Amino acid sequence: MAQDPLVIFTPSGRRGRVPAGTPVLEAARRLGVDLDSVCGGRGICSRCQVSPAFGDFPKHGVKVDEDALSPFNEVEARYDRIRGLRPGRRLGCQARIMGDVVIDVPPESQLHRQVVRKRAEAREITMDPATRLLYVEVAEPDMHDPSGDLQRLHDALEQQWQIEAPEVPLPVLHRLQPALRKGDWAVTVALHRGNHDRAPRILDIWPGLFEGRLMGLAIDLGSTTIAAHLCDLADGAVLASGGVMNPQIRFGEDLMSRVSYAMMNPGGAAEMTAAVREALAGLAREVAREAGEDPARIVECVLVGNPVMHHLLLGIDPVELGQAPFALAASDALSLDAADLGLSTINPAARAYILPCIAGHVGADAAAVALSEQPWNGDELTLVVDVGTNAEILLGNRERVLACSSPTGPAFEGAQISAGQRAAPGAIERVEIDPQTKEPRFRVIGCELWSDEEGFAEATAATGVTGICGSGIIEAVAEMRMAGIVDASGLIGSPRQTGTWRCQPEGRTHAYLLHDGTAAGGPKIAVTQGDIRAIQLAKSALYAGARLLMDEMGVEKVERVVLAGAFGAHISPRHAMVLGMIPDVPLEKVSSAGNAAGTGARIALCSVAARREIETRVRAITKVETAIEPRFQEHFVAANAIPHATDPFPCLRKAVSLPEVHFNTGTEQGNRRRRRRRG
Amino acid sequence: MAQDPLVIFTPSGRRGRVPAGTPVLEAARRLGVDLDSVCGGRGICSRCQVSPAFGDFPKHGVKVDEDALSPFNEVEARYDRIRGLRPGRRLGCQARIMGDVVIDVPPESQLHRQVVRKRAEAREITMDPATRLLYVEVAEPDMHDPSGDLQRLHDALEQQWQIEAPEVPLPVLHRLQPALRKGDWAVTVALHRGNHDRAPRILDIWPGLFEGRLMGLAIDLGSTTIAAHLCDLADGAVLASGGVMNPQIRFGEDLMSRVSYAMMNPGGAAEMTAAVREALAGLAREVAREAGEDPARIVECVLVGNPVMHHLLLGIDPVELGQAPFALAASDALSLDAADLGLSTINPAARAYILPCIAGHVGADAAAVALSEQPWNGDELTLVVDVGTNAEILLGNRERVLACSSPTGPAFEGAQISAGQRAAPGAIERVEIDPQTKEPRFRVIGCELWSDEEGFAEATAATGVTGICGSGIIEAVAEMRMAGIVDASGLIGSPRQTGTWRCQPEGRTHAYLLHDGTAAGGPKIAVTQGDIRAIQLAKSALYAGARLLMDEMGVEKVERVVLAGAFGAHISPRHAMVLGMIPDVPLEKVSSAGNAAGTGARIALCSVAARREIETRVRAITKVETAIEPRFQEHFVAANAIPHATDPFPCLRKAVSLPEVHFNTGTEQGNRRRRRRRG
Repeated sequence: MAQDPLVIFTPSGRRGRVPAGTPVLEAARRLGVDLDSVCGGRGICSRCQVSPAFGDFPKHGVKVDEDALSPFNEVEARYDRIRGLRPGRRLGCQARIMGDVVIDVPPESQLHRQVVRKRAEAREITMDPATRLLYVEVAEPDMHDPSGDLQRLHDALEQQWQIEAPEVPLPVLHRLQPALRKGDWAVTVALHRGNHDRAPRILDIWPGLFEGRLMGLAIDLGSTTIAAHLCDLADGAVLASGGVMNPQIRFGEDLMSRVSYAMMNPGGAAEMTAAVREALAGLAREVAREAGEDPARIVECVLVGNPVMHHLLLGIDPVELGQAPFALAASDALSLDAADLGLSTINPAARAYILPCIAGHVGADAAAVALSEQPWNGDELTLVVDVGTNAEILLGNRERVLACSSPTGPAFEGAQISAGQRAAPGAIERVEIDPQTKEPRFRVIGCELWSDEEGFAEATAATGVTGICGSGIIEAVAEMRMAGIVDASGLIGSPRQTGTWRCQPEGRTHAYLLHDGTAAGGPKIAVTQGDIRAIQLAKSALYAGARLLMDEMGVEKVERVVLAGAFGAHISPRHAMVLGMIPDVPLEKVSSAGNAAGTGARIALCSVAARREIETRVRAITKVETAIEPRFQEHFVAANAIPHATDPFPCLRKAVSLPEVHFNTGTEQGNRRRRRRRG
Repeated sequence: MAQDPLVIFTPSGRRGRVPAGTPVLEAARRLGVDLDSVCGGRGICSRCQVSPAFGDFPKHGVKVDEDALSPFNEVEARYDRIRGLRPGRRLGCQARIMGDVVIDVPPESQLHRQVVRKRAEAREITMDPATRLLYVEVAEPDMHDPSGDLQRLHDALEQQWQIEAPEVPLPVLHRLQPALRKGDWAVTVALHRGNHDRAPRILDIWPGLFEGRLMGLAIDLGSTTIAAHLCDLADGAVLASGGVMNPQIRFGEDLMSRVSYAMMNPGGAAEMTAAVREALAGLAREVAREAGEDPARIVECVLVGNPVMHHLLLGIDPVELGQAPFALAASDALSLDAADLGLSTINPAARAYILPCIAGHVGADAAAVALSEQPWNGDELTLVVDVGTNAEILLGNRERVLACSSPTGPAFEGAQISAGQRAAPGAIERVEIDPQTKEPRFRVIGCELWSDEEGFAEATAATGVTGICGSGIIEAVAEMRMAGIVDASGLIGSPRQTGTWRCQPEGRTHAYLLHDGTAAGGPKIAVTQGDIRAIQLAKSALYAGARLLMDEMGVEKVERVVLAGAFGAHISPRHAMVLGMIPDVPLEKVSSAGNAAGTGARIALCSVAARREIETRVRAITKVETAIEPRFQEHFVAANAIPHATDPFPCLRKAVSLPEVHFNTGTEQGNRRRRRRRG
């Protein structure tokens, strides 16, 4: 007896022998090759397309004859006629293996295809969404065996897809009977596989073969902005992204003021819950509209946010988060109906998954950052910093991961800064100061030119120069320090001390004038002594949090720093280091991860395995509570200087030289004397 | 070493040896004795009270000393002081077994206590509700191990009650944090154990030990009336019962007219769904009010109804039920949120359980009747008939059970009868006709006297005699037959033929005058030829259904007949047999089961095991579809006579003698001749 044909699948390299006549789809299943199929091998969905290769393949050790596969059959011909099949392509469920053959599975035919992330250091995501489409043929009703349509659907799912008794929400049940009849006893269901030991669930149903796409929303619920990515659940592609301001801002700019609002006002938490849910529903509708997609096809959402946002989204009073021991109502990941979160604009049976919170001050957003950055996957000791009103900080490597949050306050977002503003066109985002002349130049958002380049005035005429945003103020202060305008203690020198007229007196201190737009009816934009103090407080908090984790880890330095968050993406690593925001590390070891929380949410949307991973990892993370840790206060105070005194900064000093200046003002001297006397 | 003490529990008779010092509750658990405890042995819930017996017990072979249990302790003393403990009672979690002892577990301390049903032939119900109270002590939050309150509740439930990760709906999660803090880190939860392989779920939560009662609603959703029983989930006691008219009546009196309404009117099904849900919500509130209970403590509902009611309740368009093959959307039992059925007046997390439907025409109400009557438990071949607008019919015994439904129409409910009315005060419900004088006497609902007894006029002055209800018309027709006023074909004789002036001409036929109230401004109440024809159609349909099942079973007679339904409770078995509604059977073998559908719903409310039983049994029932069965038509036509020709009626003939009369009217003769010619 001749040997069974050998089949080799690429790119997986899986190989094996199957009896002659085995369909390619069946061979793929037996050999564990990832080949998609919605219709279960009936030749109608075309998801199982493959590209057989013919000829001599010495590296595989086979020679493939033209008749290694059964001839193009009637089903394929019809499909090709009606929908078109690319040259060389076959339907995996129709083509039968007759001889040794090499078969390539193109990426779009892989159910668990890999999504390549743009950044070199980021791991690829393997598609493994919770919800997928299944085509199923259901037995017709029989008066003599009067089981319900639902039961026959259950039977068919079990026989054809080995899915046991999925739950069917009422809105889906309502549409079951017409769908079965319209589809001539065939339907496509959107099946959510269930989480943990929960039963699977049918989220939607269509007559016959449904050929539309299922989508998911990854939502990063920030204190200030809410960002959403609409993703194709088949390949993870981002179809549209959008953002809105968090309407809770009217109840309080920062988290603690929102917690206070909830404490002081009966029904205040519920008001904030209603506000954010309404915004979410609108945002979901908006991104679907932007992508030209039906929002009813959005069957899943993944949400991340800090603990206060997390609780308010769920309708839980955040009062416990405002006081020790900062007890979360729920820390583990949650799966629930999206409708229960007010997401009324998407599929009515859509599911929502909320990532776990790490601790009372370290939320699901930090978990999402961790999922995106996976510090546990590397050997290098990596510090991941997500800068916002609160900074979430992770430190770790393959051996151990620590987490904390640090109350940086809103200065990094341009708030509490005299000329501060949100990152928007017209805001100064980059600053350079000439160490010799002490003259500044800058760039504003929405314009590629520097302020001293030709055409700048014309290019910014529409927006004007309106203020300075978070990344701008960081660069401005760092540049002032490097230009000798600010000393290590954070004091701005006088015109005499600094040698520039731009250091103008303001009360008993000085302010450095970046830009005077008054001639054109615009504002004067200066960095005041108060601005410097606000940035010092913020950066000290951030640095102290990182140091606290380093203490806990028992290390004096880290090997890599990742700046996450929309803000992190815009910070210049060099300026951040000059300012002393982050521990000393070679500049080339500082990178930006962009909106890592949003990326983490997208990963969880695309992969159930990733959800399981972050749930497990979060439990293993060592949580450090900054609010009650005396060493945090010590680090915070010690980190006040620019750069501060607690650390040697060899890498920084190698990269930049900081002038040894020291300014005194009467006021500051007096203050210091007074403090000394009291102490 | 001395032997361990012997402990004997009564009434179970379970016995075994336990180490000296074992608490009684612990001993009960080890020996599988059913002893309740909400607090898990902490001496606060008092549910584990037991009555130890002292002295000589030759039948158990033990002698119990006074010191067989540890002395009354501080916990018991405090409990006795504050709440009072009955003399001789001990708390099972406090009293420790020190020597051989006999311990009685009183019924109220049994978690799975038996509920004794009133009827001799009915099986007892063992309490085993899906939802029970559990007291649990939860670890306080710890900043250094910042798990959420929910996770610590989960941990505690697993450790203290071996309950794994129950689901917590959002409204319960909202109240978790305040409950834990108010209860000083102890809460009582109402835990629904989940159905099949579904996860358990926390339906409600209270601070500390909750001492209120949990309740359930058993709802019989009829086409005409909706009945609800409010039950204590601890002991099954009915706390209140209530009923309302089904507001869907305005869309159609009978089922098929409601199906037609749904077919003819876009949104018609949704209108009927909204109407019945609103009525249910109102009824739930009403029965709770009547019982003086908080409706929020109603945590479970069990609903039964015929397939059209079942579908409309669920919001499913019943159109498929109106045409062959009468496909149910869902036949199996359903578990869902009561809120999804619009039951907004009870606990927001309450669960609803809907019994399975047997077939497209045999609904969850018939399944409930089956659960109540359990034909599969007896050796006698039993016919169970639930008479309504449709009659549900079950036939079977230990070996096999068959079911069908039969379209009797509304005549048995007093509709389509000239003087017919619903069963209400003033309606004639009992009739006797003297075979000699042909004079009638009757009783009306709301009065104990017969119409020929002294004081009847005064006693009925308030209501008057307003009409005749279903049981009244059955008795009237049967009595007319026995008195020789109606012949076997159903014809009413003339005054000359019958010898009574009460047979008054009406068109070409006659009507028998039961009561003339015109002198007092009331109605004339007569049984017309049309009434007889309507009753003949109804009873023929009922009988034909029963015969069809007998054919299917291959039997010529049944051994027992159970009349179920509110109507069945009022039918006189003798009259039903004279009329030929039911197959011939000794009169003493005909019994009434009352509202068996409601009883079945109550049983399912009290016992999860009963739910599993009916789910299994329904699958094994042989379904017979009357609508397409030619033999049904044959039986129906043959069953027209009173009593009819298809059967020998030996039992009936032994009990009553039916006069051999035969009346002709010109019209009827002519009709019959014309029919013969056409045929």
